[in-house]
Amino acid sequence: MPRWRLDIRYDGTDFHGWAAQPGLRTVEGVVTEWLGKVLRQPVALPLTCAGRTDAGVHARGQVCHVDVPETCEPPEVAERRLARVLPADIVASRVSIAPPGFDSRFSALWRRYRYRVWDDPRLVDPLTLRGSAVWRRPLDVDAINHASKQLLGLRDFAAFCKPRDGASTIRKLLDCEANRLPSGMVVFHVRADAFCHSMVRSLVGALVAVGSGQRDADWLASLLDLDTRANDVTVLPASGLTLEEVGYPAAEELASRAEQARQVRTLS
Amino acid sequence: MPRWRLDIRYDGTDFHGWAAQPGLRTVEGVVTEWLGKVLRQPVALPLTCAGRTDAGVHARGQVCHVDVPETCEPPEVAERRLARVLPADIVASRVSIAPPGFDSRFSALWRRYRYRVWDDPRLVDPLTLRGSAVWRRPLDVDAINHASKQLLGLRDFAAFCKPRDGASTIRKLLDCEANRLPSGMVVFHVRADAFCHSMVRSLVGALVAVGSGQRDADWLASLLDLDTRANDVTVLPASGLTLEEVGYPAAEELASRAEQARQVRTLS
Repeated sequence: MPRWRLDIRYDGTDFHGWAAQPGLRTVEGVVTEWLGKVLRQPVALPLTCAGRTDAGVHARGQVCHVDVPETCEPPEVAERRLARVLPADIVASRVSIAPPGFDSRFSALWRRYRYRVWDDPRLVDPLTLRGSAVWRRPLDVDAINHASKQLLGLRDFAAFCKPRDGASTIRKLLDCEANRLPSGMVVFHVRADAFCHSMVRSLVGALVAVGSGQRDADWLASLLDLDTRANDVTVLPASGLTLEEVGYPAAEELASRAEQARQVRTLS
Repeated sequence: MPRWRLDIRYDGTDFHGWAAQPGLRTVEGVVTEWLGKVLRQPVALPLTCAGRTDAGVHARGQVCHVDVPETCEPPEVAERRLARVLPADIVASRVSIAPPGFDSRFSALWRRYRYRVWDDPRLVDPLTLRGSAVWRRPLDVDAINHASKQLLGLRDFAAFCKPRDGASTIRKLLDCEANRLPSGMVVFHVRADAFCHSMVRSLVGALVAVGSGQRDADWLASLLDLDTRANDVTVLPASGLTLEEVGYPAAEELASRAEQARQVRTLS
């Protein structure tokens, strides 16, 4: 069966997250339903994605794949039809034939998220509020960037993760920094090989505590010594979080990367 | 009574426009209500604004004024309190003492609007949809900017205006051009001394007809000869329109400008 790559964007506000759940409106559920309809498939085609976003989290660069029957019309036809039928809060920006060995989840080298936050209620642009959050204390962006450097690299992020049985909380954090835009909005850029559940919102939650002077850089560093979830880290609201981009290796490395990513990470 | 200037932003989606109407949620209604509460006034203080936006139209730079009793606490106190109590879709970004002669409506030299439109459904960023619109034909931005030059200057914009008894439709159009952003969104910048009802949405409606090849620049020019509303101009959806900024003269010219603006415009 040919494999297709789907590039997807969504406003997560009115979805119960990515993963299909009976009776709830989810991104996976809506895309699977409409893809089946435009391809005229009697049975749902299973969809796999790079980042299983939580309820209320958005995406500008979600990537999925689906294996379709040989008899399906070409992906350009599905792309055109999806543009006409998908609800306004989901966009399929591209449907294409995936290169050999491509797996949207396991071939990915990294995921890049942004978290958008307003720290002065008077500067808030209300039109951005579906994609941002409000933190009611002024943030010191330099203090945040000084502290966040300590988090980079291959580490156990257990303090920032909702635990899942048997799953590793070891991740490689590649970027973690904040910028203040001319509008006054503060944007966090966070990139890692992968993220565990609620990790970005917990990382940014810890960083805004540092940036507003409630905690210091040493406290942040001490969280890395924990082997269970920290009870003094605020998980920020989903509204501020967007999956921006997923990085993949060159075509010839897609299969070997997928093989490697299937193994459990260790610190050694 | 001291006069205050209020700088206001709002997401217009869930408002029936600016002007107070019994039983409907309007920007004027909500601001008047909360201003009265934070100033502990038993009777509503009348609010005047620079641009009476229609239902669904947004503002990043709306300016209003209100005359308050001498006994009121200073404007900074009202500003702080409004930041805590206003609903999330309205922000009072500044409350300050207005300079002598200031009238938010009549002292204004110009109003600047933006209209945001996506012309490729696959490029749409769903998080922007409360503040933009979708036009399902590709736009030629150069053709738009070539044609729109003809509209600049002091002219009768009757073709683009919802008529109002006894009101002039003569306006001075100062800027009217489109730009395509890297995201693919097309943004129209429209600035005039003032606008009549539905004028920006009709102007942009005529320009997208030119930009998508349905009409030509001569048709656009011919609209300026009409002395009543054109029946072949589409009024684009309110969602794409935002009042961005209102321009005022230097302090010493505020009163004379207000005097001048109260007179009915003529072409001579």
